[in-house]
Amino acid sequence: MSRRVQIRGTGLIGTSLGIALTRKGYAVSLADPSPTAERLARDLGAGQLAHDVTAPPDLVVVAAPPDVAAGVVAQALTECPHAVVTDVASVKGAVLDALLADGAPIERYVGSHPMAGRERSGAAHARGDLFEGRAWVIVPAPDSSSEAVALVEEIAHAAGSVTSRMDAADHDDAVATISHLPQVAASVVAAQLRTLEDHALALAGQGVRDVTRIAASDPRLWTQILAGNAHSVSRVLQRVVADLSDVVAALEGLSAPEPGADVGSLEVVSRTITHGNTGHSRIPGKHGAAPTAYESVTALVPDTPGELARLLADVGAADVNLEDLRLDHGLGQPFGLAEILVVPAAAERLRDALRVKGWRVLE
Amino acid sequence: MSRRVQIRGTGLIGTSLGIALTRKGYAVSLADPSPTAERLARDLGAGQLAHDVTAPPDLVVVAAPPDVAAGVVAQALTECPHAVVTDVASVKGAVLDALLADGAPIERYVGSHPMAGRERSGAAHARGDLFEGRAWVIVPAPDSSSEAVALVEEIAHAAGSVTSRMDAADHDDAVATISHLPQVAASVVAAQLRTLEDHALALAGQGVRDVTRIAASDPRLWTQILAGNAHSVSRVLQRVVADLSDVVAALEGLSAPEPGADVGSLEVVSRTITHGNTGHSRIPGKHGAAPTAYESVTALVPDTPGELARLLADVGAADVNLEDLRLDHGLGQPFGLAEILVVPAAAERLRDALRVKGWRVLE
Repeated sequence: MSRRVQIRGTGLIGTSLGIALTRKGYAVSLADPSPTAERLARDLGAGQLAHDVTAPPDLVVVAAPPDVAAGVVAQALTECPHAVVTDVASVKGAVLDALLADGAPIERYVGSHPMAGRERSGAAHARGDLFEGRAWVIVPAPDSSSEAVALVEEIAHAAGSVTSRMDAADHDDAVATISHLPQVAASVVAAQLRTLEDHALALAGQGVRDVTRIAASDPRLWTQILAGNAHSVSRVLQRVVADLSDVVAALEGLSAPEPGADVGSLEVVSRTITHGNTGHSRIPGKHGAAPTAYESVTALVPDTPGELARLLADVGAADVNLEDLRLDHGLGQPFGLAEILVVPAAAERLRDALRVKGWRVLE
Repeated sequence: MSRRVQIRGTGLIGTSLGIALTRKGYAVSLADPSPTAERLARDLGAGQLAHDVTAPPDLVVVAAPPDVAAGVVAQALTECPHAVVTDVASVKGAVLDALLADGAPIERYVGSHPMAGRERSGAAHARGDLFEGRAWVIVPAPDSSSEAVALVEEIAHAAGSVTSRMDAADHDDAVATISHLPQVAASVVAAQLRTLEDHALALAGQGVRDVTRIAASDPRLWTQILAGNAHSVSRVLQRVVADLSDVVAALEGLSAPEPGADVGSLEVVSRTITHGNTGHSRIPGKHGAAPTAYESVTALVPDTPGELARLLADVGAADVNLEDLRLDHGLGQPFGLAEILVVPAAAERLRDALRVKGWRVLE
């Protein structure tokens, strides 16, 4: 007999999970405060309406907005006395604290955080493969039963995710640095562009584009996320403010007229960039593998349909695996630069192969 | 008779410019404090050794490191009394101030800044197309003659660049925000990863990768750049520190136990993300065109040689122009997501075309 999963909250995450689990043979039921939203999720293949199902669920997945998740979890624990309950909010400590304060039966509760999302929200953008290949952090409560943890891990795997376990404090500290800090940094850097003159904006290169890409994120969702992880985010932001203040003081010393005001300043500036080198080198490579220093092969690509495809076909024909690809658009020019990252052993062979095919390969 | 250009400093920029101008028929001569460096540049096709040339140059291009540029410019103005002299340092005010203080004949001096560079330095990495399609800012001194300005613009165009004119203060303010701030922000965010535990680093997604990509930059070069633009960078960093401090105060209010400590905090957090949206939307689109909201079409691509090429061949066959491409690697999974950005009118047609070819197109 297939397991019964009830999903409470049929937005992007809830509906996507319903589609994924239904495809894997789970009996999924759906509930949402909005009758329109839950019927849309049903019509998209995410499961049946909970209203039409009498058998009690084995697992309730709360996919409500972060700021109401704890209340919905508590309600589910009460209403479904034999079910395991999990939530998918991207901040875990606040949910757990609220449940503990509430005296909820947390041996049946397991927090979780699928690291999946889109720049668009709502059931209409749901897709069954949203979780495929993504990290899904399992956050057991202090008293979660091992059966409860195993059941939540089972559905994360069924959705295609790769799971790991952390406690709530470790999780919230980790995402504060690896996810929430980059968002705030991108936003404040992009905010400086609001008042920049057009001729200055015209100098934008790939650097500022990369740094600010996620500044386009949804303010409503991110306000909830940052507020929900206020303490951890505040701590890491304070470290960043301290580092930036050191740079400001060093730069002021360098531009001050008094002799000697600049002593030590260059070391601070140099250390800032060097520490960035070190931190950057620790980011894991593709597929969670150890970081690898890929070598880049750069070719000039005319900006007409099919040219990039032709280039990559030639890369494939050279039997070289493309590890990453970065496009750099020329300003006012009808071509771009395609930077192909490959394992170092393959780089020279690839350059030769592309030149034979008539590509302009740089360097 | 072809114009004579002397390049002083045969690192990456000087040698690349020599190759580009030689190809365009200019008579290029090369000088560098290092005999090895200038001969390497000659052997790479960047020009003749200045030592072997008797005719005086029409233009001297100083491509020395930023912290010695002003001295080399002053020397060239003295040694070549009929030549126009320019430099390519990425900070312009410091060079101009030193020349003015020196009483140099600045009607023959024009500052310039080709917005080109690589993550690697030195003549060995030079390439003749380094400037193609790049912005090259022309920074006339207050007394630069119009003939001098025209000559510098001529060689920038000959190298393939797109020129614009700014005064030194405007230039330095512009690059402080559009280039130097993103570098410092990327470095300080990446620096926070130095001490992060491996299980937290394993949660790294595309956001933190993008924000920190340029944190891999060269500390020696960037120390010179930031020190050379200390005042402008310090000012924009102070604005960023103020914005971040507002966020820290708001988050502390949100996590404080006292009732009422959080009043106004959510507005600060929300405004930070919203201002980031606004600033991000002002970054010009591809080819310097007005920003366009491209629509993304996302397909699942097996991680084997040739698959991405096959996808893009199918994009080309659909006669759709790919505006940008972003690869998102699944964690521990043998495939990735390819996000193809196209003009909105082409998106639905492309999705249909790819599905017909058997691709798994998301959403």
